[in-house]
Amino acid sequence: MAETTKHIALVCPGGPITKELAAQTGEIAAARFGDAATLDFHPQCFLEAGHFAGTDKERTAAFLEVANDPQNDAVWFARGGYGACRLEDGWWSKLNEVARSKTYLGYSDAGMVLARLYKEKIGRPVHGPMPTDLPRANGETAIARALDFLIKGDAATFEPNVKPSVKYVAFNITVLAHLVGTDAMPDLSGHIIMLEDVAEYLYATDRALFTITSDAGIRKAKGLMLGRLSDAPENDRPFGQSEEEVIQYWCARAGVRHLGRADIGHDADNKIVPFGSLATGA
Amino acid sequence: MAETTKHIALVCPGGPITKELAAQTGEIAAARFGDAATLDFHPQCFLEAGHFAGTDKERTAAFLEVANDPQNDAVWFARGGYGACRLEDGWWSKLNEVARSKTYLGYSDAGMVLARLYKEKIGRPVHGPMPTDLPRANGETAIARALDFLIKGDAATFEPNVKPSVKYVAFNITVLAHLVGTDAMPDLSGHIIMLEDVAEYLYATDRALFTITSDAGIRKAKGLMLGRLSDAPENDRPFGQSEEEVIQYWCARAGVRHLGRADIGHDADNKIVPFGSLATGA
Repeated sequence: MAETTKHIALVCPGGPITKELAAQTGEIAAARFGDAATLDFHPQCFLEAGHFAGTDKERTAAFLEVANDPQNDAVWFARGGYGACRLEDGWWSKLNEVARSKTYLGYSDAGMVLARLYKEKIGRPVHGPMPTDLPRANGETAIARALDFLIKGDAATFEPNVKPSVKYVAFNITVLAHLVGTDAMPDLSGHIIMLEDVAEYLYATDRALFTITSDAGIRKAKGLMLGRLSDAPENDRPFGQSEEEVIQYWCARAGVRHLGRADIGHDADNKIVPFGSLATGA
Repeated sequence: MAETTKHIALVCPGGPITKELAAQTGEIAAARFGDAATLDFHPQCFLEAGHFAGTDKERTAAFLEVANDPQNDAVWFARGGYGACRLEDGWWSKLNEVARSKTYLGYSDAGMVLARLYKEKIGRPVHGPMPTDLPRANGETAIARALDFLIKGDAATFEPNVKPSVKYVAFNITVLAHLVGTDAMPDLSGHIIMLEDVAEYLYATDRALFTITSDAGIRKAKGLMLGRLSDAPENDRPFGQSEEEVIQYWCARAGVRHLGRADIGHDADNKIVPFGSLATGA
């Protein structure tokens, strides 16, 4: 194995994945990077406890194990789903010094973990594709993008609006609405906040934006950018406003700038958004 | 008209109702109370602006008009749906002295208004049935219950756990999760909080309870009581825990007492829960 081999550890803070998906993801990494990278799927990824990839205790322990292991260069969340907010209280306080130099990649429900890491200034939380994106149309491009970022730090993977001197975060709208008012919510004043969602009624997205734009930090954000709202179900009443009108409405009410579209979403085109500023590393 | 006639004004802060529903509700009131009660449906109830019963401006104006009118004894929200969080900023600051002595009855999305009224100590916010409950099975009993409360203050309509010396609120779980972290969120320390929801996946209810039990006031609540979670869709993954286990889990994590079941929900049995304490009137 090359001395510069990057070791990527995978865990599931929410839902589980299959061994087949892990094998397929590993094959893509091997074809693309040979022995310059290893993907280590923690056995916890394949546990099942009702909705979750193992109990809260098992998911917490697996995450702490891989994050605290000096062998691992990065932690890649293998799937969102639901459950990251159920990790055991104080998990972040059990992360060691090596955990503080790692990259943590994922999105959607994994945003619950990324938010807390960012609030506690632990490592580099990053929004981007996960192995569970592989079955999507052109899913292999999403996996390749995540690997290119994790292994080479390739700036071509970044969401095209990202500038080094500006602070960014990217969140699922439903997840961010549920973070507001909790201890896990970071101060997003001064940030450009990229937002996306999937399979939510437009009225539910509108309601979530009420909560999001009520947050004191977000009211001092540099601006909001809307990613894709995919697979929104049709309601029995048409909402009567487009998604553009909805984001502009809430930005106007909150006095936050609306900065156009972001190239993120629950799809294969979902780009990489490192949290914070690339220039300052914080 | 009798001197003691109670004048009930109806508005729709979220979605609209039909004139037929208004007429049917009026007939029930007439049969039950004759000229001891009038129901005045504001024309705004029948407006349609996309998802909403008129524009934000129209819904806000209608609510302020009926609340500030000394002729009206109570304001009854005719429907939930979605939209009460979109009333114009500062609407509560435009309520006059007579608005401060009124009862405001509704639930579900109307909880967005009840929460703000309660926070601002304006009038008596009350959880209970709305005209839109009439088409439910046994819906007429729900309407009769609401009328018996509005017109006679009948204590037999109260949720059976309600004791005069204890402070209560009742909320839809999704609505309360979206209130947490906003300026509309009242301090619920010391309260017994009754919760219900409809048509939400159990994982979504679980996630909402993460947010709700993160609120500092709710962490000092006297206890939580779970009403009905009706029409929860089946997810592609069974959640693996019952609704009882879910509420107990989050109560345990937050250090809040779980006080059993509450007789509220999106159904005809939905009981009346006056916010605050009946004994102190606050």
